Amino acid sequence: MDKYEQVIELAKRRGFLWNSFELYGGTAGFYDYGPLGSTLKRRIEQIWRETYVVQEGFMEIEAPTIGIEEVFVASGHVGGFSDPLCECKDCREAFRADHLVEDMVACADALNVEELDKIIAENNVRCPECEGELGESYEFNLMFRTNIGPGTGRQGYMRPETAQGMFVDFLRLARFYREKLPFGATQIGKSYRNEISPRQGVIRLREFTQAEAEIFIDPNNKKHANFGRFADTVVNLYSEEAQEKGIVEKISLGEAVEKGTIAHEFLAYQIGLTNHFLKRIGIAADKLRFRQHLKDEMAHYAIDCWDAEIETDRFGWVEVVGIADRTDYDLKAHANVSKTELSIYREYSEPKMVTQFVVKPNMGKLGPLFKGKAKAVADALKVLTQEELEQESITVTVDGEEVTVPGDVVDFAEETVKISGENIIPHVIEPSYGIDRIFYSTMEHAFAEEMVGGKEEDEDEEARNILRFKKEVAPVQVAILPLLTREELITPAKKIESQLKQKGLLVSYDDSGTIGRRYRRNDEIGTPYSITIDYDTLEDNTVTIRDRDSMKQIRAPIDGIEDLVYEMIYMSREFESAGKAL
Amino acid sequence: MDKYEQVIELAKRRGFLWNSFELYGGTAGFYDYGPLGSTLKRRIEQIWRETYVVQEGFMEIEAPTIGIEEVFVASGHVGGFSDPLCECKDCREAFRADHLVEDMVACADALNVEELDKIIAENNVRCPECEGELGESYEFNLMFRTNIGPGTGRQGYMRPETAQGMFVDFLRLARFYREKLPFGATQIGKSYRNEISPRQGVIRLREFTQAEAEIFIDPNNKKHANFGRFADTVVNLYSEEAQEKGIVEKISLGEAVEKGTIAHEFLAYQIGLTNHFLKRIGIAADKLRFRQHLKDEMAHYAIDCWDAEIETDRFGWVEVVGIADRTDYDLKAHANVSKTELSIYREYSEPKMVTQFVVKPNMGKLGPLFKGKAKAVADALKVLTQEELEQESITVTVDGEEVTVPGDVVDFAEETVKISGENIIPHVIEPSYGIDRIFYSTMEHAFAEEMVGGKEEDEDEEARNILRFKKEVAPVQVAILPLLTREELITPAKKIESQLKQKGLLVSYDDSGTIGRRYRRNDEIGTPYSITIDYDTLEDNTVTIRDRDSMKQIRAPIDGIEDLVYEMIYMSREFESAGKAL
Repeated sequence: MDKYEQVIELAKRRGFLWNSFELYGGTAGFYDYGPLGSTLKRRIEQIWRETYVVQEGFMEIEAPTIGIEEVFVASGHVGGFSDPLCECKDCREAFRADHLVEDMVACADALNVEELDKIIAENNVRCPECEGELGESYEFNLMFRTNIGPGTGRQGYMRPETAQGMFVDFLRLARFYREKLPFGATQIGKSYRNEISPRQGVIRLREFTQAEAEIFIDPNNKKHANFGRFADTVVNLYSEEAQEKGIVEKISLGEAVEKGTIAHEFLAYQIGLTNHFLKRIGIAADKLRFRQHLKDEMAHYAIDCWDAEIETDRFGWVEVVGIADRTDYDLKAHANVSKTELSIYREYSEPKMVTQFVVKPNMGKLGPLFKGKAKAVADALKVLTQEELEQESITVTVDGEEVTVPGDVVDFAEETVKISGENIIPHVIEPSYGIDRIFYSTMEHAFAEEMVGGKEEDEDEEARNILRFKKEVAPVQVAILPLLTREELITPAKKIESQLKQKGLLVSYDDSGTIGRRYRRNDEIGTPYSITIDYDTLEDNTVTIRDRDSMKQIRAPIDGIEDLVYEMIYMSREFESAGKAL
Repeated sequence: MDKYEQVIELAKRRGFLWNSFELYGGTAGFYDYGPLGSTLKRRIEQIWRETYVVQEGFMEIEAPTIGIEEVFVASGHVGGFSDPLCECKDCREAFRADHLVEDMVACADALNVEELDKIIAENNVRCPECEGELGESYEFNLMFRTNIGPGTGRQGYMRPETAQGMFVDFLRLARFYREKLPFGATQIGKSYRNEISPRQGVIRLREFTQAEAEIFIDPNNKKHANFGRFADTVVNLYSEEAQEKGIVEKISLGEAVEKGTIAHEFLAYQIGLTNHFLKRIGIAADKLRFRQHLKDEMAHYAIDCWDAEIETDRFGWVEVVGIADRTDYDLKAHANVSKTELSIYREYSEPKMVTQFVVKPNMGKLGPLFKGKAKAVADALKVLTQEELEQESITVTVDGEEVTVPGDVVDFAEETVKISGENIIPHVIEPSYGIDRIFYSTMEHAFAEEMVGGKEEDEDEEARNILRFKKEVAPVQVAILPLLTREELITPAKKIESQLKQKGLLVSYDDSGTIGRRYRRNDEIGTPYSITIDYDTLEDNTVTIRDRDSMKQIRAPIDGIEDLVYEMIYMSREFESAGKAL
């Protein structure tokens, strides 16, 4: 068993992850979060919210997961969001064409379907399932399609990312934030990709959770007001240059901006924030790096992109967050398709006097001449130069038709006007998180097997599985363990459970099996603290608290125990300071 | 403007609700939650979690929103989840056939398509849009369909409810809870219904959020261990009998169980819990009732169902929660389709001695006689009666084929055996919440317009809109208002903002416009408390706190203000006790 198998086995057995539709044989690309998995996932999402929504102030919105066609025409997903698909003519099994030839050629994923078919033919590649003949490859769109409404209803798609919801709401958001840049919005929600044949378990899902922020900033000012927070933070940077050498560089974000490795402060701040978040939820610092997109893999419109990558045992370095400066690409794309200006008005600190060439079509004359087309003709005239307008008769094109206009229906002049502001299209900085991959990495990095015990003469050494979750992330933060299932122990145990719950802590009450077995069970699900209620409790109102990692035990009073545990979990209070060592 | 329009107008303007895809003209049945709406919705969901997950202990899971066909064959949605659809032959517009005739006949929604077509023909009903001729009605399935994977991929559906995810995971859940009844699981997530032509705004959405609990209980014991909590709670009960009279009855849940109005304690407890939850988030007590399903509207398998209904201005009484005893219907349905036993083993308190008839086929003899079929023959023999087995030759049917077996290959006897337990199929109690409708009702019940001011001579009376949200539900709990945008006031204001955020409070910082305008703005979004920082603050370290509802003001010290506000919001501390009245 490799580590992936070990973690997934534990995850299934203990209620973190279950194969979806297991009762019906399952379907690739779908996982259920069980009770503990769902709680762990929500803890991760909650810390993400604290980071981006509460602290950074990028308010969360919730747009539908079903989208209409126009949105994805604008975003480019209808046209270009696809993988090359190759089907077996015999067994009808479908494969990623690039995966079929990846051992025969470098960069298979950069080839088009004609190139892929050529390599398949040259190498006589056959169906990996049945050795049958393969058909021609074609581009398969990865969006799940559906129809909205009956009959002549509209084409709909399950969104492939949450981002478009924020772009489509841009004007509403700009008004909400009173048009003051920078502002941002976030979403945490489901996204969908109809993968051709997903084979990487929880790493490649057809339905997954994203947490994305779209931050709208001034294109002329990409400094960050709070950059000082991360200027000295040292991260593992795998820049384009570093990738050529194959060596990850440890460098401070301030230096990386200064050297021009990272395009600007605002992007570097986002890398710092991602680094901070991932470590806070328990990603191992030495298994985390930021890899820059190479020139030829970066989208043509982007200025600079970095992926946070996490090292995993089976899959190597896995991309979990993308951080990009997408410029004004998205807003322009939606402006074009929707025929709506997506910009904000920025007032100058003081008005400017500007000399400009002004064209004034005479509507009194144009009206009778062109009737319904007069407005269109006027618009066409407005963009002409002085030279063109000085002709005796002027030719403009309206609705594809040439129209001749007498020179005297239009006035023009150089005028000096006062301008107090301008419309600008903000640039977009986007950190985009794949929550499921982060969830899995958190489990894998927390997972350990170790031998414990064997120190006392009568004690056998035994193996224990342990999930060393960060305390604030653990799905169960405290286990309440009455030594025996006797009324006199159950009563105080239940009382402590309720005290801790009131404090907002995640508590589990567990009274089945020996105390040793219950400790192991709680180690395995990563419970930081276990509280045992025994017969001494009835005498002196104290309980035993056991620390998951050190397995040390202390004795502490019941009175105020909820504050004690709260402080140990959220306020770095030392375990040893919380009671008398045993 | 009726109240719905007023609330929606405010909701759009202030960032609670936006029409989805507004940039592209919108699509019926979809709404976006804006920044404040999303926060309010999360507060409602969070209180639901505290109620069901933390306090009741029904752990949350997260199953995919896309489901495979088998799941919805078992649930009955593939076969029966439809509305009658009637299309215009001219303009192709689609209508709910029952809506077209609802003024001509009682209970139009109970008629089948043939009956509907008859009424349409008899009354010469034409297309409401273009007066065209209507086509024949047919049943339109309300699930959004999609395909999972390419080409020969499987049929998939967007789930019409979250419930099936819990049923499909039953065996995993039973193991997680160590098979101890009662246990339950919950989900909060998106569900989808492809409505034919939704026309009720946020009340009838094609994509909506459900919060559902599936509680598995002992079919032989429907008492509730904690029923005392709600036995004396008086609710507005609109039982089948009360509906005949047209009078809602105020009655305690204990009495309602005693009289047999509510089928049993466990269901009555759930009604009590729903009543508690809805009032806690701000639903007006006099606009909330529980309506029992009439015999002819209740699902055939259910024992008793109650809907929580909320009165709204435009739509009258709207169903927002369904609470049902669904018996073992769901588990049996999935057991049938999946060919898997869905039951739990219940150990008796002490083993029972049972006399039973035992059949022991002699495999040593059956093997040579029937080879590969021997096992099937043995299984067929095991279910025969003593009389049948006493024949010299026995005939059984195996794989549809008659097989004759000599009498001497099977032994049988009456034996007394010890049985220590049995397999039972739990019954399901399901509270199912429609979060979007509850969200809207919370806004409508909180909304008020009132005239304020005009008491002083130099003060004009003016109208204010106010959302009287419960303090713990409000999307902004505290507004921080520096009197002027001057550095010396901004610094302490930002410091207070950060103190309050650290305490987990929802804070907004607002420094634009006059203080009066900012108060109005915060009244309109329902902010319970506004804190103003002025020049006195710099002298004596105190601030003004204003109460939204009474508009009273007090002066309180900055030091410890986060605890003060926290106590007022979460621990019913009196406003007047928090500082010096102004």
